[in-house]
Amino acid sequence: SMNPDLASERQTASFSVEKLTTWLDGGAEQTRLRRAVVEAIECDPVFSREDQYFQSQNERYEAAVRKAVHLQKKMQEMGWSEDGPEFKYIYRAVAGDIAFLLHRVFMRSVSMLGSDEQIAKWIPLASQYQLIGSYAQTELGHGTYLQGLETTAVFDVTTQEFILNTPKISAMKWWPGDMGRSATHTVVFAQLYVHGKCYGIHPFIVQIRSLQDHSLCPGIIAGDIGPKMNFEHIDNGYLMLQNVRVPRENMLNKFCEVQPDGTYVRRGSQKINYFTMTSVRISLISGEAVLPLMKACTIAIRYSAVRRQSKLKPGEQEAKILDYQTQQEKLLPQLAAAYAFHFINDYLQELFDRGYRDIQRKNFDTLPELHALSSGFKGMVTQCCTSGVEICLRACGGHGYSLLSGLPSLYTKIIASCIYEGENTILLLQTARFLIKCFMAASTGQSVPPSVTYLAAAKPGNCPAKNKLDFLHPDIYTEAYQHVAVRLISSTAAKLQDLIQSGVKKHDAWNRCTVQLVQAAKAHCHYITVKNFVETVEKIETKAGIQKVMKDLCDLFALYGIFSNTGVFLHDGYISGAQMDMVTASYLDLLAIIRKDAVPLVDAFDFTDKSLNSALGSYDGQVYQRLYEWAQKSPTNKQISPAYGKYLKPLLHNRLSKL
Amino acid sequence: SMNPDLASERQTASFSVEKLTTWLDGGAEQTRLRRAVVEAIECDPVFSREDQYFQSQNERYEAAVRKAVHLQKKMQEMGWSEDGPEFKYIYRAVAGDIAFLLHRVFMRSVSMLGSDEQIAKWIPLASQYQLIGSYAQTELGHGTYLQGLETTAVFDVTTQEFILNTPKISAMKWWPGDMGRSATHTVVFAQLYVHGKCYGIHPFIVQIRSLQDHSLCPGIIAGDIGPKMNFEHIDNGYLMLQNVRVPRENMLNKFCEVQPDGTYVRRGSQKINYFTMTSVRISLISGEAVLPLMKACTIAIRYSAVRRQSKLKPGEQEAKILDYQTQQEKLLPQLAAAYAFHFINDYLQELFDRGYRDIQRKNFDTLPELHALSSGFKGMVTQCCTSGVEICLRACGGHGYSLLSGLPSLYTKIIASCIYEGENTILLLQTARFLIKCFMAASTGQSVPPSVTYLAAAKPGNCPAKNKLDFLHPDIYTEAYQHVAVRLISSTAAKLQDLIQSGVKKHDAWNRCTVQLVQAAKAHCHYITVKNFVETVEKIETKAGIQKVMKDLCDLFALYGIFSNTGVFLHDGYISGAQMDMVTASYLDLLAIIRKDAVPLVDAFDFTDKSLNSALGSYDGQVYQRLYEWAQKSPTNKQISPAYGKYLKPLLHNRLSKL
Repeated sequence: SMNPDLASERQTASFSVEKLTTWLDGGAEQTRLRRAVVEAIECDPVFSREDQYFQSQNERYEAAVRKAVHLQKKMQEMGWSEDGPEFKYIYRAVAGDIAFLLHRVFMRSVSMLGSDEQIAKWIPLASQYQLIGSYAQTELGHGTYLQGLETTAVFDVTTQEFILNTPKISAMKWWPGDMGRSATHTVVFAQLYVHGKCYGIHPFIVQIRSLQDHSLCPGIIAGDIGPKMNFEHIDNGYLMLQNVRVPRENMLNKFCEVQPDGTYVRRGSQKINYFTMTSVRISLISGEAVLPLMKACTIAIRYSAVRRQSKLKPGEQEAKILDYQTQQEKLLPQLAAAYAFHFINDYLQELFDRGYRDIQRKNFDTLPELHALSSGFKGMVTQCCTSGVEICLRACGGHGYSLLSGLPSLYTKIIASCIYEGENTILLLQTARFLIKCFMAASTGQSVPPSVTYLAAAKPGNCPAKNKLDFLHPDIYTEAYQHVAVRLISSTAAKLQDLIQSGVKKHDAWNRCTVQLVQAAKAHCHYITVKNFVETVEKIETKAGIQKVMKDLCDLFALYGIFSNTGVFLHDGYISGAQMDMVTASYLDLLAIIRKDAVPLVDAFDFTDKSLNSALGSYDGQVYQRLYEWAQKSPTNKQISPAYGKYLKPLLHNRLSKL
Repeated sequence: SMNPDLASERQTASFSVEKLTTWLDGGAEQTRLRRAVVEAIECDPVFSREDQYFQSQNERYEAAVRKAVHLQKKMQEMGWSEDGPEFKYIYRAVAGDIAFLLHRVFMRSVSMLGSDEQIAKWIPLASQYQLIGSYAQTELGHGTYLQGLETTAVFDVTTQEFILNTPKISAMKWWPGDMGRSATHTVVFAQLYVHGKCYGIHPFIVQIRSLQDHSLCPGIIAGDIGPKMNFEHIDNGYLMLQNVRVPRENMLNKFCEVQPDGTYVRRGSQKINYFTMTSVRISLISGEAVLPLMKACTIAIRYSAVRRQSKLKPGEQEAKILDYQTQQEKLLPQLAAAYAFHFINDYLQELFDRGYRDIQRKNFDTLPELHALSSGFKGMVTQCCTSGVEICLRACGGHGYSLLSGLPSLYTKIIASCIYEGENTILLLQTARFLIKCFMAASTGQSVPPSVTYLAAAKPGNCPAKNKLDFLHPDIYTEAYQHVAVRLISSTAAKLQDLIQSGVKKHDAWNRCTVQLVQAAKAHCHYITVKNFVETVEKIETKAGIQKVMKDLCDLFALYGIFSNTGVFLHDGYISGAQMDMVTASYLDLLAIIRKDAVPLVDAFDFTDKSLNSALGSYDGQVYQRLYEWAQKSPTNKQISPAYGKYLKPLLHNRLSKL
């Protein structure tokens, strides 16, 4: 049965939830397809996540392998293919708890970095699971800085083999997924040496386990790196290589080759590698950051409409916690951010698709911009979504802290997105480097990529808002964001130049500006996000109800950003103290407005109860009943703990002997 | 062997680490005592935490019970008593993974709320573990708002018993520690009914499990609430009561009694209850918030002096990540905060001790101030320490995400401190209510408690700083903090009055100001923290080296607070944009200065390797070796997963059949 408090939230929606869902999906056909995939996966008991919160690391690994193997069968059964329209919904539906994701990266790297012969040899083997692949790049002592990797591959002319070695403990491969227990093969990145000369990092296909009995191959030491905050389903592994020999043909050689006599030949453009990273960073934004935030918002907002605590008015019943301003101020900006980042993901995808078409025509011009945007947005979005999920967790009080709420596992998983595929601070600094370069170019009149033309067009003057309603004009706030981005970029560029002119060495000057450079990069991404949200709202052609509520959300996102970063707007007086009070007033007013539609706005994300896997977030709002039922299933209630017989009984028995 | 990078950090310390440790402990005798306790606990294998990261919830519970039982023995053996000077170090040394903490709360509540007869009956039983107690207050549907509890206790005159019931699912007791599997007795808080009239919430001692065989007593449904983010060692439980009868004498009746004929008598003052909460909130600040932050800083800073990544200068070896400004900006403010909160804890303890002496003399005057400060600081300190630990975790990149770093368990545990013993937002609003009251009183010339006299003494004018060095004058920044606190409190008081005068009902007006009230309460606590840090530094009488480095840390704490909250200082122009640039410059300069002493500053916290339980944070800095060794111990490396035989082998076997 439906909780009446939650039911009443849905009766007053100012828009059609189904229409909003369809619009977010990009059309009714997409919605239909997504639901069909989710339905097919969720009705299959192999994919059930019912026991997830009670499983050990070993059990989760086993379930993930089972799911991965079963998924192959399922896809054949359903007629789904890797390049079919359903594909993007499959991993969303299994909600990540599946093995062999690195097998896919293995295949992608062979396809990208291998010659035609290599592709012809390895891809069929991999796609038919005649091997299980992994991707061994990161080392115990080396992450983002690839040039620092220490694994070596020395070419032996006499045997036409590469001899791979882990020269010291910090060179051990560490973290690669699917490698701890599953993989039979992996792509190892190592420093190539030929005739004593180092040619830098190259990829080699190395077999690590027997195809017969899965035992480790000679010279291989490998295993699981142990427990982590989450990702228990993945066997992140370590790998040590001791004089492991692979044939010359196992170096992936699309871009460079070692010939039989040891001659090193480089060929083609490596820019495409650059593009691969960009592609991965953009592709993780939606699935690994925005979707988890949407789920967390759904759970926390539904719960806040059911949970009652204290009285708002004397004599009345206890109030829904969603009616408290402080609770609204925690959750509703996260809801607005989830929408904002969903739209920025569309923007990045479009830019990426355009870039991809250019690259196929051998035009690499858009790469620097695409690289800068993908780095910056990966950094900004994963960071904001991570804090958003944490806010949702804490906003649910004690019950949010129970694994059964679903929030702890969302949090412990999303926090990893701030680190993998490029640590966020380093990524934001890459964006900053691009911005400084473009700012310099723009100030000397050179042309710059479209997303940064605003750097040249900066207008002087202050914010023209006269009352709190003026801050609901998108022009007003978009210009404020633009002004701040320009100011932070230009002032940091000036500091950098001043330092260099005063004799500080370039790299040192850069290091001394990095705290401010990160701020500038964030301001740039924030500005683009606000601008893109505004443009998205303007383009809405569906029923007015949706445009109105999206406009409110857009305003909320923009004003929250000002309210929570007042300093950068006040710094040079662009926004005055009096105007900031207007921002605050408008912002707080918006909370009360969005609050009315909060539940329908999360309903529109269209998550099934199974995909939320949360005792607090289900559609029917029966939170207490579900917490109680789910707790029964815990292994802690399945048996009398040995602690009783061993420790409690003797302790309490003392009493009997004393009586 | 010592990692040379870490060794070199220690050679250049600007002060004596041992002297700093001693000073932090409050004297050499304290240091000696603390080390003796830690040594005694850590050399006892029962207290080993070596396997902690590999254990299931069941295993951690069993180990925690074992430790609790063993601790009794150990204390007798060592001659330690609950009121001895060693006692405060014992729980620090066992690092929290121990059962029966709620048994102590059971005893405390009997002592506080029970009559002399009740104390005489129950305390000896409890202290000799002839029963195991718990404390059942929170319900599934009710937390902080005690008046809303739904459990009932109806007095039956004919049998002279109370009949306890859980009238609906939301009334089930939920979360009490030690209750899921251990406790035999508990204190149940229930609405008292006599002759049909409700007298509000009262405490009752209820037996829930047999002392013979630990089976549940008639009418009792109880169990474990299942997995949580942490606290797996504690059996947080649920409890449903179905017509459970307890004798009239089981209502704790120091302050009120139901007489045999049903007459309800209230006696004495209940203000002491108020004082209990205060005492608990203050006592958790050090152990549950500041110590975990100190540990996280120790781990992250030592690791950052060992970990090398990328090049800072071309041609040199890879740089220690601690040499990057962005890394310093993440970690060093957390280090300064750990010191600041250590000192504020001393301040609160002193205030509390003074208050306690007053109360013993029946003087309750200091209670409101003490309540406001303990609420506000519990809210502020647990929140800052939680984000500090998260920053430390993320600053260690991928390895921080491994449980073996020790950081995930610190984080998943400390985050609970934001919720238990009063949810932080609610606590900060209690402080705000006190501040508004005092502000009103002060503005009409009435006297106010010492910590808020500054509200009356606010001076007009702007910050007098002329260059970046001026911001290293404690007067300059302390006054800035004071100014902001006064401004936020007074402007919110004004908004509140305006709303009420414009006809908005009082409770509604309050709700519409709560976002700003929380800000004001935080500003007040921040100001007191800065002021107290300054005063602590001024009072240092030990060697100059310590005073100098503490002064730098104090400056860093203060300027970081301004740098990361620029808006509130810029809002009315108290600090100008140009002055804010000076703050930034001084702040960034300080990072480079503190960085030199960063490792000695965490060494001074004097954590043993065992207490850190971190592969990244050990004193010798052998991080890679230790990660590798510890990973071997993981259950994931102890056996071949059944997944191989069940799923991987058949999958790969396909290949053989196809060949």
